Amino acid sequence: MKLVFLGTSGSTPTKERGLTSVALQFDGNVFLFDCPEGTQRQMMKSKTSYMKINHVFISHFHADHFLGLPGLLATMAIHGRTNDLNIFGPKGIEKKIKDLIKLSEFKLSFEIKAQEIKKGIIVKENNYSITAFPLKHEIECHGFVFKEKDKEGEFNRAKAEALKIPAGPLYSKLAEGKKIKFEGKTFSPEQVMDYSKARKGRKISIVFDTLANNSYLKQIEESDILVHESSFLEEKKARALETLHSYAKQVGALAEKAKVKKLYLIHLSPRIKEIERIENEARMEFAESFVAKDLDSIEIMQN
Amino acid sequence: MKLVFLGTSGSTPTKERGLTSVALQFDGNVFLFDCPEGTQRQMMKSKTSYMKINHVFISHFHADHFLGLPGLLATMAIHGRTNDLNIFGPKGIEKKIKDLIKLSEFKLSFEIKAQEIKKGIIVKENNYSITAFPLKHEIECHGFVFKEKDKEGEFNRAKAEALKIPAGPLYSKLAEGKKIKFEGKTFSPEQVMDYSKARKGRKISIVFDTLANNSYLKQIEESDILVHESSFLEEKKARALETLHSYAKQVGALAEKAKVKKLYLIHLSPRIKEIERIENEARMEFAESFVAKDLDSIEIMQN
Repeated sequence: MKLVFLGTSGSTPTKERGLTSVALQFDGNVFLFDCPEGTQRQMMKSKTSYMKINHVFISHFHADHFLGLPGLLATMAIHGRTNDLNIFGPKGIEKKIKDLIKLSEFKLSFEIKAQEIKKGIIVKENNYSITAFPLKHEIECHGFVFKEKDKEGEFNRAKAEALKIPAGPLYSKLAEGKKIKFEGKTFSPEQVMDYSKARKGRKISIVFDTLANNSYLKQIEESDILVHESSFLEEKKARALETLHSYAKQVGALAEKAKVKKLYLIHLSPRIKEIERIENEARMEFAESFVAKDLDSIEIMQN
Repeated sequence: MKLVFLGTSGSTPTKERGLTSVALQFDGNVFLFDCPEGTQRQMMKSKTSYMKINHVFISHFHADHFLGLPGLLATMAIHGRTNDLNIFGPKGIEKKIKDLIKLSEFKLSFEIKAQEIKKGIIVKENNYSITAFPLKHEIECHGFVFKEKDKEGEFNRAKAEALKIPAGPLYSKLAEGKKIKFEGKTFSPEQVMDYSKARKGRKISIVFDTLANNSYLKQIEESDILVHESSFLEEKKARALETLHSYAKQVGALAEKAKVKKLYLIHLSPRIKEIERIENEARMEFAESFVAKDLDSIEIMQN
């Protein structure tokens, strides 16, 4: 599992930072969180395949969060994509995408499945799920949690062989927690599983533009990685409150409270030149705080 | 006068090249030719002020030529621009801009004067003019000529002083070629101008997506710099004809025929990895051919 920071600036890009966008690579898929202007090129630079994106999540409809969509879709079409693409976004996402494509005057070569984000689980697969939760911003805005499925234990092959269960699909079923029948006998997972080797699935929380507060504390609790906007320093607290954005110290405090393992700060105001100050402010509250840099990529090891 | 290549790739960006866009700096103004995704950031990187842009020219409405407009306008608004902005483009440009801004959900802080491009002079000022001419592409597309005004001669201050004409506005009028009256006497420019010091104004021609042909030869003739698309190599001649694009050898031949001083090739297909091949193909026809690189900036000296 790899997290790639495609861009880390808020409101406008800078020479050093593209607009904020995050890609998560997992199990051969790429999940893209926000798609501002410049995203497709940042993907090229970070060697993150845009052809492998199956899910795009748009947090909200401010100009610095979604204007890279038409260009990305056009490039996918030029490269002959035929797979469906799922795009999740605020109310009106389907019309927004249709209008953007129409204005951009290109033809799609694939189907887009647009879905409006509702609070709760929005994607659920065998080995992971993605949950959305509302944030407090000027307009409808969501944060996201990617959660790998917990592993309850490890299949003990030796035990299964001792019970004379033949290798193959029956092993998989037992490993998935199901009882099986073989030659008239019933076997239950407990007979072959080693529960001492249970493993928590990895949890990545991504929090875009918001006034930092406790309303989403529960959602982000015990994340392996919390990615959180930090537009300002504490000296701009008033501005943060006014524009419904966060400042570093506050985000550090939230990370500490949520007992996350690591915090990465994104969506920095272009006016902040002293990046260490942001990091230091957050670290006063939570030691494992880092300011993300463009094209940084973080390998997230299994728990 | 400075020409800046903000991007040089066609159809999609690459790791090395942004989408094609050219800025011309002259007399404190910035003229922007095409505005694809990524343009605002390339301007930041090249230290070309986007706040000094007063004229934007959009060659045509293919997705790789104008999708950077909403982001650029949003950034200008964030930075509090109040000056009017002139945007020239194909038929429908006014509606296109309105729709893009509406979809992007930000508020403009300044006025946009959108104008549809008609063949001929589209901007005329004291010291320069800009002319548009039609190109042969899938949809309405224009090329542009920036022409500095020719200088007929140099004002000879010593001669004016000998005639006892007082320094100031009267000198300017004479230098502009106007007769003046002073203390009952009429003076004509010929009395104070040194015509041996006449100087041709600089001429920059910018040719976007087109099948290279002679239809615009007259317009680009004797350019100091010809900037021309060169999507393909000769081996892809059939593809160039089919998609109404140019290939390097053909563009070199056109530059030779048009007696330009220097040729810069832009809008390269992302598939071409051997840039020297493009340059070499063009140079077989015209020695002063160069492939433009992103953020290259060319000082254009007075003639």
